Amino acid sequence: MGRQRWVEVARGVAGRLAADAVERERKGAEPLVEVALLRESGLLPLLIPVAHGGHGEDWATAHAVLAEVAAADASVGHLLGYHYLHVWRTRLFARPDLTEELDRATAEGRLFWAGVANPRDDALVLSDVDGGLLVNGRKFFATGASVADRLVVSGAHGDRKLTFTLDARAQGIRYLGDWDNLGQRLSASGGVEFTDVFVPAHDVLGPQPAKSDPRAQRDSLAPLAFQLVLSRVLAAIGRGALVDAARYTRETSRAWPASGVEHAVDDPHALAGYGSLLSRLEAADLLVDAAAAAFAEADARGLELTADERGKTSIRISHAKVVTSELAVEITSKLFEFTGARATGARHGMDRYWRNARTLTLHDPTVYKAAEVGRHLLTGEYPTPNGYS
Amino acid sequence: MGRQRWVEVARGVAGRLAADAVERERKGAEPLVEVALLRESGLLPLLIPVAHGGHGEDWATAHAVLAEVAAADASVGHLLGYHYLHVWRTRLFARPDLTEELDRATAEGRLFWAGVANPRDDALVLSDVDGGLLVNGRKFFATGASVADRLVVSGAHGDRKLTFTLDARAQGIRYLGDWDNLGQRLSASGGVEFTDVFVPAHDVLGPQPAKSDPRAQRDSLAPLAFQLVLSRVLAAIGRGALVDAARYTRETSRAWPASGVEHAVDDPHALAGYGSLLSRLEAADLLVDAAAAAFAEADARGLELTADERGKTSIRISHAKVVTSELAVEITSKLFEFTGARATGARHGMDRYWRNARTLTLHDPTVYKAAEVGRHLLTGEYPTPNGYS
Amino acid sequence: MGRQRWVEVARGVAGRLAADAVERERKGAEPLVEVALLRESGLLPLLIPVAHGGHGEDWATAHAVLAEVAAADASVGHLLGYHYLHVWRTRLFARPDLTEELDRATAEGRLFWAGVANPRDDALVLSDVDGGLLVNGRKFFATGASVADRLVVSGAHGDRKLTFTLDARAQGIRYLGDWDNLGQRLSASGGVEFTDVFVPAHDVLGPQPAKSDPRAQRDSLAPLAFQLVLSRVLAAIGRGALVDAARYTRETSRAWPASGVEHAVDDPHALAGYGSLLSRLEAADLLVDAAAAAFAEADARGLELTADERGKTSIRISHAKVVTSELAVEITSKLFEFTGARATGARHGMDRYWRNARTLTLHDPTVYKAAEVGRHLLTGEYPTPNGYS
Amino acid sequence: MGRQRWVEVARGVAGRLAADAVERERKGAEPLVEVALLRESGLLPLLIPVAHGGHGEDWATAHAVLAEVAAADASVGHLLGYHYLHVWRTRLFARPDLTEELDRATAEGRLFWAGVANPRDDALVLSDVDGGLLVNGRKFFATGASVADRLVVSGAHGDRKLTFTLDARAQGIRYLGDWDNLGQRLSASGGVEFTDVFVPAHDVLGPQPAKSDPRAQRDSLAPLAFQLVLSRVLAAIGRGALVDAARYTRETSRAWPASGVEHAVDDPHALAGYGSLLSRLEAADLLVDAAAAAFAEADARGLELTADERGKTSIRISHAKVVTSELAVEITSKLFEFTGARATGARHGMDRYWRNARTLTLHDPTVYKAAEVGRHLLTGEYPTPNGYS
Repeated sequence: MGRQRWVEVARGVAGRLAADAVERERKGAEPLVEVALLRESGLLPLLIPVAHGGHGEDWATAHAVLAEVAAADASVGHLLGYHYLHVWRTRLFARPDLTEELDRATAEGRLFWAGVANPRDDALVLSDVDGGLLVNGRKFFATGASVADRLVVSGAHGDRKLTFTLDARAQGIRYLGDWDNLGQRLSASGGVEFTDVFVPAHDVLGPQPAKSDPRAQRDSLAPLAFQLVLSRVLAAIGRGALVDAARYTRETSRAWPASGVEHAVDDPHALAGYGSLLSRLEAADLLVDAAAAAFAEADARGLELTADERGKTSIRISHAKVVTSELAVEITSKLFEFTGARATGARHGMDRYWRNARTLTLHDPTVYKAAEVGRHLLTGEYPTPNGYS
Repeated sequence: MGRQRWVEVARGVAGRLAADAVERERKGAEPLVEVALLRESGLLPLLIPVAHGGHGEDWATAHAVLAEVAAADASVGHLLGYHYLHVWRTRLFARPDLTEELDRATAEGRLFWAGVANPRDDALVLSDVDGGLLVNGRKFFATGASVADRLVVSGAHGDRKLTFTLDARAQGIRYLGDWDNLGQRLSASGGVEFTDVFVPAHDVLGPQPAKSDPRAQRDSLAPLAFQLVLSRVLAAIGRGALVDAARYTRETSRAWPASGVEHAVDDPHALAGYGSLLSRLEAADLLVDAAAAAFAEADARGLELTADERGKTSIRISHAKVVTSELAVEITSKLFEFTGARATGARHGMDRYWRNARTLTLHDPTVYKAAEVGRHLLTGEYPTPNGYS
Repeated sequence: MGRQRWVEVARGVAGRLAADAVERERKGAEPLVEVALLRESGLLPLLIPVAHGGHGEDWATAHAVLAEVAAADASVGHLLGYHYLHVWRTRLFARPDLTEELDRATAEGRLFWAGVANPRDDALVLSDVDGGLLVNGRKFFATGASVADRLVVSGAHGDRKLTFTLDARAQGIRYLGDWDNLGQRLSASGGVEFTDVFVPAHDVLGPQPAKSDPRAQRDSLAPLAFQLVLSRVLAAIGRGALVDAARYTRETSRAWPASGVEHAVDDPHALAGYGSLLSRLEAADLLVDAAAAAFAEADARGLELTADERGKTSIRISHAKVVTSELAVEITSKLFEFTGARATGARHGMDRYWRNARTLTLHDPTVYKAAEVGRHLLTGEYPTPNGYS
Repeated sequence: MGRQRWVEVARGVAGRLAADAVERERKGAEPLVEVALLRESGLLPLLIPVAHGGHGEDWATAHAVLAEVAAADASVGHLLGYHYLHVWRTRLFARPDLTEELDRATAEGRLFWAGVANPRDDALVLSDVDGGLLVNGRKFFATGASVADRLVVSGAHGDRKLTFTLDARAQGIRYLGDWDNLGQRLSASGGVEFTDVFVPAHDVLGPQPAKSDPRAQRDSLAPLAFQLVLSRVLAAIGRGALVDAARYTRETSRAWPASGVEHAVDDPHALAGYGSLLSRLEAADLLVDAAAAAFAEADARGLELTADERGKTSIRISHAKVVTSELAVEITSKLFEFTGARATGARHGMDRYWRNARTLTLHDPTVYKAAEVGRHLLTGEYPTPNGYS
């Protein structure tokens, strides 16, 4: 349909999400309604090739879509972004047959994906059984898993790390429903427990390639995809917050007596404050766009991707992560200075932007992302690929 | 008993408040238990002269007490600070008899005070009836009123502003219970409606003095007292947040892999980050202490207080308000960068510091307080006394 | 030759400028050598159409060139940027013949242009004489004029504002040589005095169009061009400073004993500090690129340009001006924290970045540029075109 | 005479320094005139006991004096502060006879003191000769030494560190006059070379005490004294800058057209900006006062000083150093936003505040001072005494 059309679809979704965002967030239920909305919108198979039944759009379109959705509801943007990357991740393995099969199933069934792979927990343990593997263990955070149809999961098989996909309703999976955090409350990020969950051999995507493996560079794009989605969602949180606050200032705020102006929109500090934050947000958005373009380019290089190209891509994405992290927190805390005291009323829910930004920015520490950028400037070195770099 | 003894009492109260601060804040009930705790502690008559049955302590002691209580629970600190200033406010009028009577009643009955005077609402309307006044009207915010024993209230009597005290349970007063804001949730700051509430003539403290009245300077200390209490509570929020976060970093945080250190307390960014914030907080505390000393000195000048002395005092208090406002918001948002992601778990309640700081700093805009300081530097002018200056 | 080729030429110029930048800046002589270098490089006719003897490059190329030159020497970048815009400005008037003539002369003679138009001074006074005009008056700042070949000048002719070009060596022009400021020391920004300077009627570009004139929108692009060049130079100052500081840290700085690292490039605070600043600088550069693209697009609209399109362009440029202003000052002051004490040695000249940024950012106050962005967000209004907007 | 009297003397000195501060700084001559002014003022023997012929004032008076002098001329404040601490330092050794002798000579001869002890250079080498020691070696920075009468010097005597005093004109001392840095230009901080300089045994203050030595805690106050003086000078730089800028805004700045106000002193951003910075500066000053009081108290403990008390003092001083360092740089860079473009004229010399602050804040990195504060908050540990802690 073309990018613009999908952006309009995304705006429609965003509009519906915005309508009751405050109530939904306060209630904090499992995001079943939200995932259903994504399903109905047609956005789920966005990146799946036309040949596999999908819409065949590119990463730039996906990012344009994510920007709209996440500005309206950061949790849902987070879920959708992770969905895109998990669908995409199957391509990193040497299983084009399985990818095609999964693509088709996803397009036809409008499946929603999530992953189970928090690098800071102990690994899930995989053991061999007839016809496949058994999965055992527990992960503390697995965004979207409890509301997903299909999971991408990694675990330890002896001294190898294997990745596979799994029906999210497979026997032996228990969703702990223990995500009760200050932000991203609708991101279904609770823990998951696996007890003798069976994975058919057919669904194993493959091992993490050794460093010398020609697939290694390409494989190491996965953690970058996470960083990129987080950057996009953070920029969108800033956008959503700023637009919402500006609306409030325009429609509701009263001018402060000492300001000497009659209308809050003429307050000199509100004018300059909004302008400074918005200007920086525009810059941040361009940076995420540039990072997304760099990522798409690296992805397109396939197995030709070199360590140097991968490194450059990682730095571009780190730029975006650093800037969006710093800015999202700043905007969402500062906006109240331009809306005034009554905007702290719980029914306006204007603190959720900060709570979302604050929570999401802690996924991994911004300062160490900045350090990667700094090291590259100082020494030319690229970060060693790992779960966060 | 001496200041140190009362600080110990305050620490006892703080300890009890801290024990279930997260749960109480989440529940958001009317702070009846909290006020009862203050009552039992003996802290309520702290500033009442010994001759009137009180403890006869000075403002410095009151501030030391507030710092302890507000660090543990900013709402309760807020309530206690306003209590002190409302008890004190009766002294600004030419009714020493009434002050003494109220002092005695407060000391004996361990009464808790609050006020009804939000300057941004329409004034309450006072009309004459036999033996007193009738009060009608509505105020949108009246911190502590719904849990108070005694109120200090102002209203319009023709073209004069009259202030009086009132039994908080007097017939015709309705507490709207509509305080549902993102922070200071236990501060009982909902609206109050007055329908033909009778005030005996005896309880009228008096009119706001005309500018030329010798009582005018002294009377205009009241808004400064509010600004000073807010500054103290804001500094205490910063303290409570920083100490709580440091405890979390020490006891719970895991070192980030890329940091190269084993323990979170050795992370270079946590070390420097905490150190920078704490250093500034120490400065802010000294500034509030200095402002409190300036206020006490101005108060002690009684009717001799000159406009210039009042102006100087107001600037000292504005310094404190500006610095504590900026810092409280910064500390409470930034601390998460030193605790890591898991500290966003709702059960830790570590977002309440930011929610409290963010809400309280909007009482009146910091930027216009800063402008008062800036104008004095540039032109030597002092702010014209009003409800916020 | 294509953009990349011109960027290489610019790099060559930048290399030569960088070689003795510190000494030249300290000496503070009129930038004759610098202008000669630009002349020889072939960069001066960059934007002049091929049909008029120029290189026919676009604004994107001009910006890529400016970024290189200004990073090496902000004064020279400033001069070159203004040169480009003055050459371009003749196109805003209904004198294609004169534009062509000037273009050809500029391309052939490798002429360097500057302007005399500081909006905050009193206007120059134009009076009619046989065959042209006489110019009288004084302007306090006229960047580049004293080292230019050709000037674009505006003055008051009765109640109209007329713009004309002038041989920079015309009789009656006196360059005051009084630019002795803390930064942009080589930008030849001193005052100019005009005493009965004769302007042939042929050289009059024309009057400033009335608001209702179809040329008005297009004409009002001129102040935006200034804002855009300033943004580019500011971003380049940040780049130059950061790269220079990083080189110093890498080559010269000693690790601080308490850091626990052996090499300054491993200092955690330097790593994170550089990374944060560089990330934001990348964002700022993209923002200037986007602003330049918006400007080129608006320029290409010619007389079709609408007020709305002009307004949108102005906001895009204001984004860039705001972000680059804030960042250039921050980078250039902060970099010393990563180089250490010895980098304050005068021979390193590392303070010139801050002095340049600080001076250039004051051309017009950033805060009012931010206010334009804020107002557009709040109300949808665009700034009224004037000398700075 | 009492503190207030000495503050008046200091104001007199400050007035004379301010009168030609810009020209003197630009010229950058050796600060001979400045030291002569200090000499004449009677301020040099301020801290020397009355019994030894001095004025017998305390550290609080010395700080009040330093604040005045350093606000007018940061270099001279730096020189005077170091003078005070070097005169005081002799007391840390077990040579009361020598201290008294030096005190008397200083009081009578109005001697000016400096030190040679930069911890980051190789140590000077001391060798035994008849009747004393020979000193050889080179130190890169020795503030004030070249204009001093008396030096306090440390060097390596075998594996011990010995401290001694020296006539600053002694044979074999060569002042390199190589201080050419961007700030603190009049602080005479160039290098010193010692070639067989003879030190009479009588002038040896003694060895640095071993850790177990009862004198160790007291001895380790010396580096704290440096940190404290630097904090005071930094706060004073901020004060001098802010007051000077405010004067400029009041007397010279023009209101910006878009501000809608007629006078620069009514610009809302200038008002709020000055107010915010001044409020923080007031806090910083109180913090330095508190640190000075803590230092004086620790000093008064003499040999009773415990490691814990010493540690507490060091943290108090670190608070001051951190806050004043951050603020001095911020104020001195930001002030231009409130003065406008013309204040960048070199004749106003308003960049010297930033150059001074930027240079002085790099004496040792603020971030590691902050880390000491952070570590104490996190673990209760105090920094291990060394040349900077």
